[in-house]
Amino acid sequence: MALAHKGLDAEVVPWRFTEAAALRFANYEKVPVLVDGERVLTDSTPIAEYLDDAYPDAPSLFRGAQASLRFTIAWTNSVLHPALVRFIVSDIAPLLSEPACSYFITSREQRFGMKLAEVTADRVERLPEFRAMLLPIRMVLAEQPFLGGAEPDYGDYAVFGAFQWARATSPFALLEHGDLVHAWRERMLDLHGGLARGVPAFD
Amino acid sequence: MALAHKGLDAEVVPWRFTEAAALRFANYEKVPVLVDGERVLTDSTPIAEYLDDAYPDAPSLFRGAQASLRFTIAWTNSVLHPALVRFIVSDIAPLLSEPACSYFITSREQRFGMKLAEVTADRVERLPEFRAMLLPIRMVLAEQPFLGGAEPDYGDYAVFGAFQWARATSPFALLEHGDLVHAWRERMLDLHGGLARGVPAFD
Repeated sequence: MALAHKGLDAEVVPWRFTEAAALRFANYEKVPVLVDGERVLTDSTPIAEYLDDAYPDAPSLFRGAQASLRFTIAWTNSVLHPALVRFIVSDIAPLLSEPACSYFITSREQRFGMKLAEVTADRVERLPEFRAMLLPIRMVLAEQPFLGGAEPDYGDYAVFGAFQWARATSPFALLEHGDLVHAWRERMLDLHGGLARGVPAFD
Repeated sequence: MALAHKGLDAEVVPWRFTEAAALRFANYEKVPVLVDGERVLTDSTPIAEYLDDAYPDAPSLFRGAQASLRFTIAWTNSVLHPALVRFIVSDIAPLLSEPACSYFITSREQRFGMKLAEVTADRVERLPEFRAMLLPIRMVLAEQPFLGGAEPDYGDYAVFGAFQWARATSPFALLEHGDLVHAWRERMLDLHGGLARGVPAFD
């Protein structure tokens, strides 16, 4: 989405956690990794910041305020992602082939200290609390169509990334129709010629 | 703090909730209200946005990205403030004289549906959860001295405003020494010649 926002083409290489060797050149153990000529960038936010710095003539992801968006990004990483995973983690393993599937189950069961089915067992009961947690997003969207204002910025892409991950891996309906956050996610799915809507997903 | 950031002088008029008549000219029932010549502005965020628009040559509060800071502001208003009030509300009434004191107790007891002493009764037990809730702030402050980056912006002032309110009304220690959020609050208190530190407060 960030590359599309900047109007940049890229070759997309799928990658699995069990394919550590493929990323050795980047000295990094997970995605995203961006290779731009001689430059190797890792991790979403540094990549997005690099894109604004390296391509200043394309539409900005940060509108000159990279530091100001870091709270939105930190909330996404430390509140939204950990909450989301507890709704969908048991739906992910069945989508994976070996050895990724075994790696995923073992590492996640270790992290949660229980079977993945147990992590999500009470997800219907926890749903109201999750939706209440989205209140700050909802408050912003009551005033403007995107977190970034009239147009999306990297804050939108960061939050949307979490929802897109959930949508691509789980049929569980996290957002209610009629919720401003649901309507915003639909707008995000429409962006850049329906780029994110084109990914295989459950809704 | 926003006025000091912009280097603007202002006459500060203390106000209490029971003094509705004094704000009738602004068609508003609470503070802040800013009068700048012919202009009357109400509510913190519109005031801050007005200051950047009207005084573009003074240091910017938003660095051109007003919309991008709205999530930080919404989180402050919908998550931080409601959490904070449940730690300090019983300490506020004893600081007020009549009729403000009676108004405060009656309106807040109605809001919470219980005596104010009951609202804060278990605050020591709730403290770890409150401090955990500050994780997104802490993550940003692990990378930069202010939420706005190397220098504070309106995001810092919005979050700080909540803590300053607590600090001015309650002796309850919300932040641990050694917490990055505590160190940041100290930096905020030092800004603009110790402007916020000069207000009567409990720590």
